[in-house]
Amino acid sequence: MTGSVDVGTSVLILASGVVGMIFAYIQFRMVAAVKLDESSSSDNSFRLLADGDASARMLEIYNAIREGADSFLFAEYKICLIFVVLFGSVVLVLTSYVGDHWAWEQGALTALAFVVGSLTSIVSGYLGMKVAVFSNARTTVMAMDPANPWTGSFNTAFRAGGVMGFALCGLGLVVLYALCMAYNKVYHFDDEKQFKALFECVAGFGLGGSSIALFGRVGGGIYTKAADVGADLAGKVVSGIPEDDPRNPATIADNVGDNVGDVAGMGSDLFGSFAEASCAALIVASSSAGLREAGWSAVMFPVMISAIGLLMCILTSFVATNFAPVKQESDVEKVLKVQIGVSTLLTTIAVLPVAFVALPSSFHIDNVAGGVISGTPIMACACIWSGLWAGCLIGFITEFYTSHSYEPTREVAQSCETGAATNIIYGLALGYKSAIIPVFLLAAVVYFSFTLLDMFGVALAALGMLGTLATGLTIDVYGPICDNAGGIAEMTGLPEEVRDVTDALDAAGNTTAAIGKGFAIGSACLVGLALFGAFTKRAGLEQKDVSILSPVIFAALLVGALIPYWFTAMTMKSVGVAANEMVKEVKRQFDTIPGLLTGEPGHSPPDHARCIEISTNASLREMILPGVLVMSTPLITGILFGTSAVAGLLAGSISSAVQMAISASNTGGAWDNAKKYVEKGCVYVDGVQMGKNSEVHKAAVVGDTVGDPLKDTSGPALNIVMKLMAILSVVFADFFTVVNNGHGLINWHQSS
Amino acid sequence: MTGSVDVGTSVLILASGVVGMIFAYIQFRMVAAVKLDESSSSDNSFRLLADGDASARMLEIYNAIREGADSFLFAEYKICLIFVVLFGSVVLVLTSYVGDHWAWEQGALTALAFVVGSLTSIVSGYLGMKVAVFSNARTTVMAMDPANPWTGSFNTAFRAGGVMGFALCGLGLVVLYALCMAYNKVYHFDDEKQFKALFECVAGFGLGGSSIALFGRVGGGIYTKAADVGADLAGKVVSGIPEDDPRNPATIADNVGDNVGDVAGMGSDLFGSFAEASCAALIVASSSAGLREAGWSAVMFPVMISAIGLLMCILTSFVATNFAPVKQESDVEKVLKVQIGVSTLLTTIAVLPVAFVALPSSFHIDNVAGGVISGTPIMACACIWSGLWAGCLIGFITEFYTSHSYEPTREVAQSCETGAATNIIYGLALGYKSAIIPVFLLAAVVYFSFTLLDMFGVALAALGMLGTLATGLTIDVYGPICDNAGGIAEMTGLPEEVRDVTDALDAAGNTTAAIGKGFAIGSACLVGLALFGAFTKRAGLEQKDVSILSPVIFAALLVGALIPYWFTAMTMKSVGVAANEMVKEVKRQFDTIPGLLTGEPGHSPPDHARCIEISTNASLREMILPGVLVMSTPLITGILFGTSAVAGLLAGSISSAVQMAISASNTGGAWDNAKKYVEKGCVYVDGVQMGKNSEVHKAAVVGDTVGDPLKDTSGPALNIVMKLMAILSVVFADFFTVVNNGHGLINWHQSS
Repeated sequence: MTGSVDVGTSVLILASGVVGMIFAYIQFRMVAAVKLDESSSSDNSFRLLADGDASARMLEIYNAIREGADSFLFAEYKICLIFVVLFGSVVLVLTSYVGDHWAWEQGALTALAFVVGSLTSIVSGYLGMKVAVFSNARTTVMAMDPANPWTGSFNTAFRAGGVMGFALCGLGLVVLYALCMAYNKVYHFDDEKQFKALFECVAGFGLGGSSIALFGRVGGGIYTKAADVGADLAGKVVSGIPEDDPRNPATIADNVGDNVGDVAGMGSDLFGSFAEASCAALIVASSSAGLREAGWSAVMFPVMISAIGLLMCILTSFVATNFAPVKQESDVEKVLKVQIGVSTLLTTIAVLPVAFVALPSSFHIDNVAGGVISGTPIMACACIWSGLWAGCLIGFITEFYTSHSYEPTREVAQSCETGAATNIIYGLALGYKSAIIPVFLLAAVVYFSFTLLDMFGVALAALGMLGTLATGLTIDVYGPICDNAGGIAEMTGLPEEVRDVTDALDAAGNTTAAIGKGFAIGSACLVGLALFGAFTKRAGLEQKDVSILSPVIFAALLVGALIPYWFTAMTMKSVGVAANEMVKEVKRQFDTIPGLLTGEPGHSPPDHARCIEISTNASLREMILPGVLVMSTPLITGILFGTSAVAGLLAGSISSAVQMAISASNTGGAWDNAKKYVEKGCVYVDGVQMGKNSEVHKAAVVGDTVGDPLKDTSGPALNIVMKLMAILSVVFADFFTVVNNGHGLINWHQSS
Repeated sequence: MTGSVDVGTSVLILASGVVGMIFAYIQFRMVAAVKLDESSSSDNSFRLLADGDASARMLEIYNAIREGADSFLFAEYKICLIFVVLFGSVVLVLTSYVGDHWAWEQGALTALAFVVGSLTSIVSGYLGMKVAVFSNARTTVMAMDPANPWTGSFNTAFRAGGVMGFALCGLGLVVLYALCMAYNKVYHFDDEKQFKALFECVAGFGLGGSSIALFGRVGGGIYTKAADVGADLAGKVVSGIPEDDPRNPATIADNVGDNVGDVAGMGSDLFGSFAEASCAALIVASSSAGLREAGWSAVMFPVMISAIGLLMCILTSFVATNFAPVKQESDVEKVLKVQIGVSTLLTTIAVLPVAFVALPSSFHIDNVAGGVISGTPIMACACIWSGLWAGCLIGFITEFYTSHSYEPTREVAQSCETGAATNIIYGLALGYKSAIIPVFLLAAVVYFSFTLLDMFGVALAALGMLGTLATGLTIDVYGPICDNAGGIAEMTGLPEEVRDVTDALDAAGNTTAAIGKGFAIGSACLVGLALFGAFTKRAGLEQKDVSILSPVIFAALLVGALIPYWFTAMTMKSVGVAANEMVKEVKRQFDTIPGLLTGEPGHSPPDHARCIEISTNASLREMILPGVLVMSTPLITGILFGTSAVAGLLAGSISSAVQMAISASNTGGAWDNAKKYVEKGCVYVDGVQMGKNSEVHKAAVVGDTVGDPLKDTSGPALNIVMKLMAILSVVFADFFTVVNNGHGLINWHQSS
């Protein structure tokens, strides 16, 4: 019979997940082989033995960063756990309420999935952080190899990134599939209604992943930028203290922040994307009778895309570490870009056989117009490809706009000639402009995949874009590790050459991080749209119910488009406030710790712990309100104005957030690199070179500082806004439909 | 019979218009009574006679500003006329094409209405400019009265504003009504089809008004900010030259710019709003059989709202000039705010009897759901009131966020303590936040009026918001006149006391200008929505045709939300580029004109004309591309993807543009006033006062400069984006529907 769970599907998915985790473990062992302390007899640590002092200093800094990261994560996850319990209860109660009676089983399963999703996200983020703060100093050590500083240091950072990338994807796959299998014991595949309920419960998994991602992105984003902006600004009030100076008490917090924001935050963000895109696809698939009749493998096809993508990413990673390893500076960026290209190419090919095996040669899908359309494996592949390649393109366009190898950022750097104001004006204009092609690409993907396979096509496109997730994550995590490695080299007082190597690794990481960010935003937008589709399916909304020509939907569209602005206002302000606190603390320490500013021998050390505490407290305090905004808006809208209003709200917020996220990220990225371009001495005014500490450089620093919260706090957090509001609506769709038949408590527009 | 044009309606509308124009003329005569040159024997000029030199200098500056304004307007309107001819031909051809044959009559009437609308807008803008540059020096002269510098100077500037306000509203009313009457001779009211065609042709009037407004806003905005930013930045490259210094060659261009942007630009913007809101209401009204049956007065009721509002504004103006004139500094802001409050209150009351007379006690309206709903005069009034009071509220909220009398702007000023970067971060956050309440208010108005009277209700709400247009315009024009008066006092070298008076007048003007801007954005949003409704009516789209759950609409929504970003990128960049040109020219003049920088007696004068030329050329060159973007997008979308896609595009662009317009305007306004707050010496750091030229002030200046293009170029121009795209779609709706039955040339989503 078609309805049974088929072994091939289970094997492919579970095996891929397990292989991913094993591969991550192997990578970890290789990173751990680099020893840091003198007591070790490993070959790799010999270089530090020559200088016991430097070695001790490095260990001290290494441990300070680890402890700072631990203490933040501990505090953050404590709040997250409280949230999981509280909001889990809300999920339990609201999803159990079905109007005339209480369906506790369904509520409990949804809440359980929510808890499992939350915990998986927490574990993933925690793991990534642990590995990152474990590998930073090891990368520094490997960069000290006088014979070949490149291969070892690059591979260490890259493998550490891989630990996060492959472990997260593997774990996500296994847990999600296990959940589906387990719930299949309760709700049976063969029964149409139960089958639908199965995946509706599984949606809790996506909600859990995304909720934690919100706290990770917002909390982490505020943490990292409070420290970074604070350290930058300290130079304004305490003269002569550069950002990375070991005397600056905010430096450790700044280094911790890189991990908190870019590793844990990005990790939970993309885990959320994966979980939600899968849930969206499963819900859409499960509501199509035609697809259910095609069997378990057809329904599970969306999950298989991620599985096969993971395997291809593993293969690709050997290109970087073994087939064409980094041997010199110019290799670094090339190798990283090849990763993106090759993994995209391999996944493109690999999905084809999977589609032909998993999907019947023709299957039926219920479309939004209320009819049935028929699809083929090649159509499914076309949807996946559109997402996959659009993601790749968006990444490279992002690079074009933010790298100082190209004209746009160079123009911004040159505009610093007439001061900070023109820098800001040019930078903002660049950000707005950089949204044009990505948005057209996303619109084209939506138009194409929606037309081809309705909402199922959109979900497939989203999963396609996430097909190379493991590679993307690897590269994303690689960046902050190299950044940290450089900071450690600086603070340890290692020779200039070491810093040059880590700087080069970091620079390439910045470029590819831009690609990763573009990709994260693009996938968030598509995932949001796929969830939007899942919501309408689940809420039973038909085309005519979500017409823009309706009072409540138009009003909701306006309010939805407002949410990203409101959210950005909150997060930007939070960073400003927290950075101010940080500056004051730095100033206080210089004023009160004797000898610190002048660097007298034997002066008391700066109080790093206090700065870490400020960042931690600020981020935890300030992440609450934005969280409440994003989570309560769909709930309030659904309860008061009904399901149609929620649809309008989601459409408004997604279409507005994607523009804002792209502009904020790219503006910030361009300013960052424009500053670096000035520092490299590439900007001339009337034939005179303008380097560090020139007026031009000062103007460039202003842009960089403004860009920090835009690109690392508000921008990335908007990804979560798009997805979280949508998955919340999906999970509570049934609840909304029982409140006054889905019309909401204030339904004046219905009666008139 | 019901169908005939009734005399009462004609009398009310035409009489109001004529009274408005006569009143404007009287105001003008009163302003002209203030004499500037020694040859005059008037009492008012005696004070200048004492100092022949100062008098000559003032006349020189006064004439330079007038000539600069004339030369810009002449160049701009030349381009506008070419545009009117070219695009008028496009209108003629496309609206004549009805698929199987050519309906030249309809096309010709639409094109004629377009030309009339364009010319009316040009005349209005030109008139306002002429009066403004005529009155600036006269305000300065009146501010020199030692006995009472307040009453005379305020009344001069206020009356000059009134000339523009009342003339524009009066002219608009008379021309629009005359057009309706004339077209009624061709298409007869009694025939349902002809009746509809009548108002579809009249829509060309709105298109004309709005097209000229686009050039006015974009061209004027770029002109004024190129000069302003250029003059600001000159201090960066040429040390020690303050913005208003008579040695600075860009000052005259800066003063011209105030008039070009804030008088001509704002005037054509609001004239466009009036014309379009009226057209939207007329089209919606004409497509409801029920309303047509209720007779001419019922159909013309929307126009009557503007007529009665104009009369109430005239009454209100006496409060400022006669009943409670300005006697001291503290009166200025109060008197201006009372204008807004009283005119709103009077209009609220006055529409009630008009509604009861013009509308039958019950009338029928075709709603978007395809049914018929019935309305009453009181329901119509409720819609009007919602718009009227929401506009008033939005104005005052804008003031709250941008005036340094309140906490938000003060906080931004204080944030300059840690430098320009925090200033920018806080300012951006403020702008985003300031959108929250206005957007909720707009959403509420839409929800309320749409629910009550369907699209007719939305159009009435828009007209309600524009009910006090004449007062709004008066106050808007008052601002730049006082600004110019201050500049003239400075450049003429008049005593400090005179400058204090004009500064106080200007400061109050800034506050109320903020209110005016909020009001302009709010009304643009409502007008855009009303036009959206008119478009769907005209394109025959029903609720189910514009579902968000459709590939092409969702894609169009994304692209629509992008347009404001694209547009802003263009205009911001244009200002940056033009300002850079200006700075280089200023530097060149100081380098090459001997004695100019040191201010040696008898040095050659700065070459103002060259700076004016730079601003003029830059603005004319740079306004083309944004214009093409806004005008071609709906056309291309409609032709390629059909009417549904256009609906999605409009919904996306309006909901995105309104947020961006509010944030951009308010961020810029807050930075401007934060700088002024610092200059007033109100910011303290560690107990030390931070005044002009302190580090805090420098940081504040950066914000102010960045804010200039945001608040005076991009922000206000977004108003036009919302309206123009919509009215274009309305006018070309019939054409879109004949292209492949309204499905567009690329209609892959239809066939699949």
